[in-house]
Amino acid sequence: MSTPEVPPKKQILLNAFDMSTVGHLSVGHWKNPTDRSATKRKLAYWVELAKLLERGGISGLFLADTNGGFDIYGGDVEESIRRAVQWPVTDPSIPITAMAAVTKNLTFGITASTSFESPFVLAKRFSTLDHMTDGRIGWNIVTSWKKSAFNAIGIDPIEHDQRYAQADEYMRVLYKLWEGSWADDALQPDVDTDTYIDPSKVRHINHQGKHYKLSTRHIVDPSPQRTPFLFQAGASAEGIDFAATHAEGIFVSSPSPEILRAQIEKNRKIAAEKGRDPRSLKFYLSFTPVLGKTDEEAQEKFEALKKNASVVGGLVLFSGWTRIDMYKLPLDEDITTVDSDEARKLRNIFKPTAQTPVWTARLIGEKAAMSDISPSTVGSPATVADVMENWINVADLDGFNLGYVTSPGSFEDVVELLVPELRRRGIYPEAVEPGLTARERVYGKGQTRLRDDHAGSKYKYEVYLEEEPYAT
Amino acid sequence: MSTPEVPPKKQILLNAFDMSTVGHLSVGHWKNPTDRSATKRKLAYWVELAKLLERGGISGLFLADTNGGFDIYGGDVEESIRRAVQWPVTDPSIPITAMAAVTKNLTFGITASTSFESPFVLAKRFSTLDHMTDGRIGWNIVTSWKKSAFNAIGIDPIEHDQRYAQADEYMRVLYKLWEGSWADDALQPDVDTDTYIDPSKVRHINHQGKHYKLSTRHIVDPSPQRTPFLFQAGASAEGIDFAATHAEGIFVSSPSPEILRAQIEKNRKIAAEKGRDPRSLKFYLSFTPVLGKTDEEAQEKFEALKKNASVVGGLVLFSGWTRIDMYKLPLDEDITTVDSDEARKLRNIFKPTAQTPVWTARLIGEKAAMSDISPSTVGSPATVADVMENWINVADLDGFNLGYVTSPGSFEDVVELLVPELRRRGIYPEAVEPGLTARERVYGKGQTRLRDDHAGSKYKYEVYLEEEPYAT
Repeated sequence: MSTPEVPPKKQILLNAFDMSTVGHLSVGHWKNPTDRSATKRKLAYWVELAKLLERGGISGLFLADTNGGFDIYGGDVEESIRRAVQWPVTDPSIPITAMAAVTKNLTFGITASTSFESPFVLAKRFSTLDHMTDGRIGWNIVTSWKKSAFNAIGIDPIEHDQRYAQADEYMRVLYKLWEGSWADDALQPDVDTDTYIDPSKVRHINHQGKHYKLSTRHIVDPSPQRTPFLFQAGASAEGIDFAATHAEGIFVSSPSPEILRAQIEKNRKIAAEKGRDPRSLKFYLSFTPVLGKTDEEAQEKFEALKKNASVVGGLVLFSGWTRIDMYKLPLDEDITTVDSDEARKLRNIFKPTAQTPVWTARLIGEKAAMSDISPSTVGSPATVADVMENWINVADLDGFNLGYVTSPGSFEDVVELLVPELRRRGIYPEAVEPGLTARERVYGKGQTRLRDDHAGSKYKYEVYLEEEPYAT
Repeated sequence: MSTPEVPPKKQILLNAFDMSTVGHLSVGHWKNPTDRSATKRKLAYWVELAKLLERGGISGLFLADTNGGFDIYGGDVEESIRRAVQWPVTDPSIPITAMAAVTKNLTFGITASTSFESPFVLAKRFSTLDHMTDGRIGWNIVTSWKKSAFNAIGIDPIEHDQRYAQADEYMRVLYKLWEGSWADDALQPDVDTDTYIDPSKVRHINHQGKHYKLSTRHIVDPSPQRTPFLFQAGASAEGIDFAATHAEGIFVSSPSPEILRAQIEKNRKIAAEKGRDPRSLKFYLSFTPVLGKTDEEAQEKFEALKKNASVVGGLVLFSGWTRIDMYKLPLDEDITTVDSDEARKLRNIFKPTAQTPVWTARLIGEKAAMSDISPSTVGSPATVADVMENWINVADLDGFNLGYVTSPGSFEDVVELLVPELRRRGIYPEAVEPGLTARERVYGKGQTRLRDDHAGSKYKYEVYLEEEPYAT
């Protein structure tokens, strides 16, 4: 569609979205003989995936995480376990270096919670990851809401508002460690004086806050990015405010580009009020395309994949996200004929369409198990790219967090079918400049450190002494 | 020395001992132009090291860790930082999969503390490591004593005795998760019933103890070993009792084989009183050989390497280990002429010898910086192997935790010079059976799970219901 004559179009960002578990957003597909989702406990899965994404020029691989099962459906985790819905789950930080060792350009994002570990421990781990990936690491900041996760960790759940206040302090402790502890020139290897580090250039951080106390220098010298590239998702007022302060990449979901546009505008406005360039917040939509060479082939593929969808698994996911216990609904009855709170809520979400004149719990579960409740499209590369361009243009979106239905399968289609089409349209980079950090991959070469207008920059070594913005 | 006619000799175990820091046990050697210790923040260092150790048939790579600097020397961490003495430090769990991906047989041990994170978080991480290394992971259990580390984490230091009581409960929570939560046959993939896991075979752990509360199923399905191979070091009465209960591999240090023999005998006896086969406790001596093709060549190498030793760095280490603040001593005075508490304590440790008729702080620092205060030998492969055989035979030792002076350098010499000599003597395996787990590597093929006489086995899924040995 684009031609060399028109001015360069906005380049989109593509993350592959996965989780070190059997069923992530699409559930039940381990039953597909070609699927390898149940082998993610082995390194081969991750090494092959990383090589594929690198070959396809995909910006990043983002891995979700959780510490508890979904327990709304039926009031317990039984079906989450039985259907392998985000269960079992392994630690996403562990396979990163195996993937980093076989790639040069692929960046990585992993989820970690501010609620479950000491800031020092998290700071050390991410500094290590940033060093060992040559600056290719991002962090998806979550505050955690699952009661089951708090029970697993053995602490009392933190109330929602409180959680974000606590997370805000947590972030500021991290900035002190990552940005404020070491001068850029603290490493001064000098053979003659037997000096490796100048200790006067490694500031001792003494944080005595409301939720955290810490007295130490950061134990890791500055990694390429210092602060990892910061992702966040969170649609509540507190979540949006937190993102407007701390997030550089924001994961969003929305039923339509128009609704999303209003949401993104609002988020950017709040960020601007905080003194940030609103365009420096990059919004990624969760999006699961099912691709074929033609629309017909894609549709046939979708129908074939659907045979393995776990209806109950899909309902487990859907119940977890919406807090509507789908276990209480009959599987095959028209939701308009059921008289219950749950059915009433569903009727607000699922309206009859020409394609689906009657909605049942089974159809909702099947749709959820195909990752087809958040935005999803079935079609040829041109069809899918049209939908993506529409999202980008209408919603003022920056990129996509691409889900999969089968792995291998979906991401291969992205690399082989979708990326070439996006490149043809001039909206995806032809080649990646090698050796960029995660932050440079988003903001451009040279922007390895936090932008100056980011909250964390107030804690940079050179300015922190004067300001002590969180001193007590 | 051995001939094919004599019965097979006891096979020794060899770990390479490293730490993701600049100066580990030998300090100052980053100044050596061929040394790469200062590049451990990059994956290439670890990938090359893993390949070397695999090629040499080394049993395992063991990585130390810490969360705080050494602060006895001069009363602060200044010189620990300046001389890069175990500072900075990166997270040892991060490079493991990069190494696992390029090896088949090398096993890994990493240090983690029971004092700083929720048992659930540690359990998840080690289960992930065990899966992704195909069962090649070990854990060095430490309870942590550095005040600086507690300040970094932001919790009050735990008293020594209390620490081990707390660590004992921590271990039992972990056994419940690793051994007691999942039945061996909980994974029951059945396409017809859309079932991946039978939730009735995943036990909910409800631990309400003195120090820990936890209510969850383990979130990771059983890894090959379930419980990682358990290492521990600890020479206090409480430490020895803890090791006799929980440790499978025990790190020891000793000035002589005779003294070590008594210590090992005592430890085995305590383990036997706890119902364990005393021979199932495997003792590893910290040992740093400097090897040359001949004794002369080794001695020349030692003298050349010594030029880079950091005297102050060595004193930082020595002060940390002994709690004697060496900063208070003049560098170049005979310790017998100094009138101070510190000097008196030193005179009990450093007696005049023909080689060193006069001891000064400088000489002690230099010796410490060459990793030459714990056992060390300079010589040809035959000389070093003689010393090692003497330790094995006199002290009833099982293996060595091999330190290095330079890396690369020291481990290359082990692989190229020492291992062939040990094999010639019939005390080191010629070839490793591929695909063994860390525990099999020590106990022999088939012993992937904890031995039946180990405390953790009381928590195995099949027996735990009946016994509830830590129920409250």
